[in-house]
Amino acid sequence: MAELGTLVLLRHGQSTWNAENLFTGWVDVPLSEAGQAEARKGGELLAEAGLLPDVVHTSLLRRAISTANIALDVADRHWIEVRRDWRLNERHYGALQGKNKKQVRDEFGEDQFMLWRRSYDVPPPPIERGSEFSQDADARYAGLGDQAPLTECLKDVVARLLPYWESAIVPDLRAGKTVLVAAHGNSLRALVKHLDGISDEAIAGLNIPTGIPLRYDLTADLKPVTPGGTYLDPAAAEEAAAAVANQGR
Amino acid sequence: MAELGTLVLLRHGQSTWNAENLFTGWVDVPLSEAGQAEARKGGELLAEAGLLPDVVHTSLLRRAISTANIALDVADRHWIEVRRDWRLNERHYGALQGKNKKQVRDEFGEDQFMLWRRSYDVPPPPIERGSEFSQDADARYAGLGDQAPLTECLKDVVARLLPYWESAIVPDLRAGKTVLVAAHGNSLRALVKHLDGISDEAIAGLNIPTGIPLRYDLTADLKPVTPGGTYLDPAAAEEAAAAVANQGR
Repeated sequence: MAELGTLVLLRHGQSTWNAENLFTGWVDVPLSEAGQAEARKGGELLAEAGLLPDVVHTSLLRRAISTANIALDVADRHWIEVRRDWRLNERHYGALQGKNKKQVRDEFGEDQFMLWRRSYDVPPPPIERGSEFSQDADARYAGLGDQAPLTECLKDVVARLLPYWESAIVPDLRAGKTVLVAAHGNSLRALVKHLDGISDEAIAGLNIPTGIPLRYDLTADLKPVTPGGTYLDPAAAEEAAAAVANQGR
Repeated sequence: MAELGTLVLLRHGQSTWNAENLFTGWVDVPLSEAGQAEARKGGELLAEAGLLPDVVHTSLLRRAISTANIALDVADRHWIEVRRDWRLNERHYGALQGKNKKQVRDEFGEDQFMLWRRSYDVPPPPIERGSEFSQDADARYAGLGDQAPLTECLKDVVARLLPYWESAIVPDLRAGKTVLVAAHGNSLRALVKHLDGISDEAIAGLNIPTGIPLRYDLTADLKPVTPGGTYLDPAAAEEAAAAVANQGR
């Protein structure tokens, strides 16, 4: 018998900027048509598995919010409770936001590129306040004050994510709910790192595929019953993870 | 100076069953293409007026939820707090759910038809438990027990709506928030009846048009500063209200 409710992670599908190979971070771009189709597929997988969320947690970014809205509508769970928080946002990509991934790799070299993309504790240079892709004037972050990041490494994401995990998501799990978290590549990597106890080094090699619900059953002390969780479509997950690893090539 | 936050009411646009002229009630049908366009227009009107919601309250029905999702996305407010409650649902139409409005009028006559549609305190016959268009097996109402209606008149809607108004919406207004309520013809008529102190007789003549945000500024004792509120597109509202009055003809 599961001690807690079930956790389901869903990474948003392709956005318009993913399609253009741009660093996105906190820039609030929409899903592409392909990304909307991924969200519908995610909803179908939830419905087919009978894995029906009681509550959804999303970031404050449109691509995660739309993914949740679409998937839940397809799964006939559009009416459940909703929670949103900036702590589920994608990693802030600092000065790289809005830049082409291939151009950054060509300009700064493969080593620096991979350090910014995959190192645990090296953030990109901070974004300039008031610049085109900064969020200085964005009403949704007005209450954050000094907490609003200007750049983040994955370690920073873990640090700002975990208080939300503990204070908002865990209580829903302890209440026995099936909890959907619709979020981003790096906020979900941060959560999986915590859940599975992945080392600072090993997390670099972990890609979470888009649009495929990842199920975690947890013990009473919040350890995964199955390390790494279970994708609702394992074959597609394996294929997709390989594709993500090739981004920027 | 406004004493409270601002209330904005938004009735969902055309659903697939509106298009087919069927009584809908608690049957959870989707918006038609036209209804989705109405929701986008509603979002544009909010954005043009600079009337930006801080929180949205919806019913548990897809046509109101999708309307809110679409309008808020267009207005760049997709990231705000969300509350949902069955007390904002459309009136339960009892045994009429799923029936064609014109056929009901032809079968029962104009007087009975108008009594069911427009009287304050005469509900249609209750829906049969387990029948095609009942909500007996619907998970979203599983917690309601005996509170789940089998039919409702507008008086019943007022009675189940007001506790939610007092306990959930008013506190948001007292906190100074701009509050969007995305709901239905009859749940919004019930709310407007309460706000504007409309008599049981006079409410029969009030139609709320779809897709056009209706703004209420309220005094500290929750009275409308402008009786009847202000539509963001008054000309379109007048035209639409006339069209609603002709439904079933």
